[in-house]
Amino acid sequence: MKDTMYIPTYDDMLAAHERIKPYIHRTPVLTSSYLNDLTGAQLFFKCENFQKAGAFKVRGASNAVFGLSDDMLEKGVATHSSGNHALSLSYAAGRRGIPCNVVMPRTAPQAKKDAVRGYGGIITECEPSTTSREAVFAEVQARTGAEFVHPYNDPRVIAGQGTCSRELMEQTDGLDMVVAPIGGGGMISGTCLTLSTLAPEVKVIAAEPENADDAFRSFKAGHIIADDAPETVADGLKVPLKDLTWHFVSTYVNDIYTASEDEIVEAMKLTWKRMKIIIEASCAVPLAIILKNKDAFAGKRVGVIITGGNVDLDTLPWFKG
Amino acid sequence: MKDTMYIPTYDDMLAAHERIKPYIHRTPVLTSSYLNDLTGAQLFFKCENFQKAGAFKVRGASNAVFGLSDDMLEKGVATHSSGNHALSLSYAAGRRGIPCNVVMPRTAPQAKKDAVRGYGGIITECEPSTTSREAVFAEVQARTGAEFVHPYNDPRVIAGQGTCSRELMEQTDGLDMVVAPIGGGGMISGTCLTLSTLAPEVKVIAAEPENADDAFRSFKAGHIIADDAPETVADGLKVPLKDLTWHFVSTYVNDIYTASEDEIVEAMKLTWKRMKIIIEASCAVPLAIILKNKDAFAGKRVGVIITGGNVDLDTLPWFKG
Repeated sequence: MKDTMYIPTYDDMLAAHERIKPYIHRTPVLTSSYLNDLTGAQLFFKCENFQKAGAFKVRGASNAVFGLSDDMLEKGVATHSSGNHALSLSYAAGRRGIPCNVVMPRTAPQAKKDAVRGYGGIITECEPSTTSREAVFAEVQARTGAEFVHPYNDPRVIAGQGTCSRELMEQTDGLDMVVAPIGGGGMISGTCLTLSTLAPEVKVIAAEPENADDAFRSFKAGHIIADDAPETVADGLKVPLKDLTWHFVSTYVNDIYTASEDEIVEAMKLTWKRMKIIIEASCAVPLAIILKNKDAFAGKRVGVIITGGNVDLDTLPWFKG
Repeated sequence: MKDTMYIPTYDDMLAAHERIKPYIHRTPVLTSSYLNDLTGAQLFFKCENFQKAGAFKVRGASNAVFGLSDDMLEKGVATHSSGNHALSLSYAAGRRGIPCNVVMPRTAPQAKKDAVRGYGGIITECEPSTTSREAVFAEVQARTGAEFVHPYNDPRVIAGQGTCSRELMEQTDGLDMVVAPIGGGGMISGTCLTLSTLAPEVKVIAAEPENADDAFRSFKAGHIIADDAPETVADGLKVPLKDLTWHFVSTYVNDIYTASEDEIVEAMKLTWKRMKIIIEASCAVPLAIILKNKDAFAGKRVGVIITGGNVDLDTLPWFKG
């Protein structure tokens, strides 16, 4: 982050899209007549679980890596992340042939750690709290001199994430609203960035776990409330808002709804069962809040961003013990 | 079945495609750069796990149901099936508004029983053996007078299944071979029916579990060898060849390969993990045999038919006990 906060623009998003197109998939938009019947809405699922590295985060990470100046290539990039940003940055750095240092909580899913290493990322583990993560990261960055690419509070990352809803709008014939999960707010901020210019009539709704509802409480309070290390099955959504994402959330988001752990797991399993796609718990939160608040979505054309598919298949949340 | 075996033709397949188009999806063809790198082949996955009722079998079932004469509508249709044919026939019968009686093994996955009932099918349970299944079915058919739609040994069903490889050829820019799992042989027979006229240069390869390798042994012996109730994780592939499917297998199939239980589960889990799609154990057999016999497929453009995605998410084969 720069000292004075730079707010990425629509043109930054367009430039990002051109920059990253060779390295990302234009992911498909799927529909389900079963889920349409169940919710009364017309749902359009933007399937970033099929994205390179298994998550939308490769968009922002690629934008940062491929926009990096030549004098930084040797030191490479570094980040801290609960998972998908880590492997997305590793993937992008690998494509550009530069080093990538990653600080990950030791409790992160094994599948994500394996994938980071598979792309050539170098992992340093920390405790599963924001405090520990930031302390360990400071040491790693001091040692390597790498360019810090924050998982979400970074204008390059937000501009990259905004390319997702640009594609979604091209792939659908008009939408009334777009629902995305909210953790640190990178995807929601990119969605706001793009839609506020491209389609300002489309409402942006954020979906959050009850157990990590800091964005919901921030939104109601009118200022950032950050919790340290909340517990939720939606492991990608534990991190708090920061100044840049708070700017977008507080300016453009129309509403935030929350769902319980059971509702999230139920929506995740329902998506697997009926749509036959592997989605993370984090991206089941939008369907969970749609099922819980049918009146708010019935009769509407609703874009739903499926943010990722990197699941540890050996520890599924509906298997106890 | 008629007394004199009627062998369905390419024109029957074309007529089937017109008849069933309103009731089926033209399913997507997916690729995976990871699996291409791993196998050395270019793989094109025809994703019938996204098909209506979750399996290719809705093609043949719909062709039989929507081709039914008016005087049979009140009595409806009946069948015995290890699962996907049962729910496909129930789905098609439901769309036409006619009754559907189904004999299913009591050991069939709960998800499949639930889905049959969800589509309005009426289930009578039998023991998990071909002998029991056929005996119980005879009673049900005598009682209802319904039209028997065999899961695979039926020209209407085979013509319907043949529509899948017609789409696959339209969706790809030429193939060297197509690999499909083989149980009773309905999908393989439909594939042979279509490709022997449309693209006779494309090799047809069947993939079978070692534990239920009756088609492999039949193919080598030159006559049908039928086993009763083999045990395999690929629960859709336990049934034996019959005269009509044997005709296609013995005339057109280029080769049959087998895979062990562990190899099938490994290929299934790998597909879930890397492609982020839910596939049944049965349709992991093709990838398992490709991984096991890389030399036979390296450098080739290979169509792989993903036959279905109806998995009981509470009893995944890599969870023990």
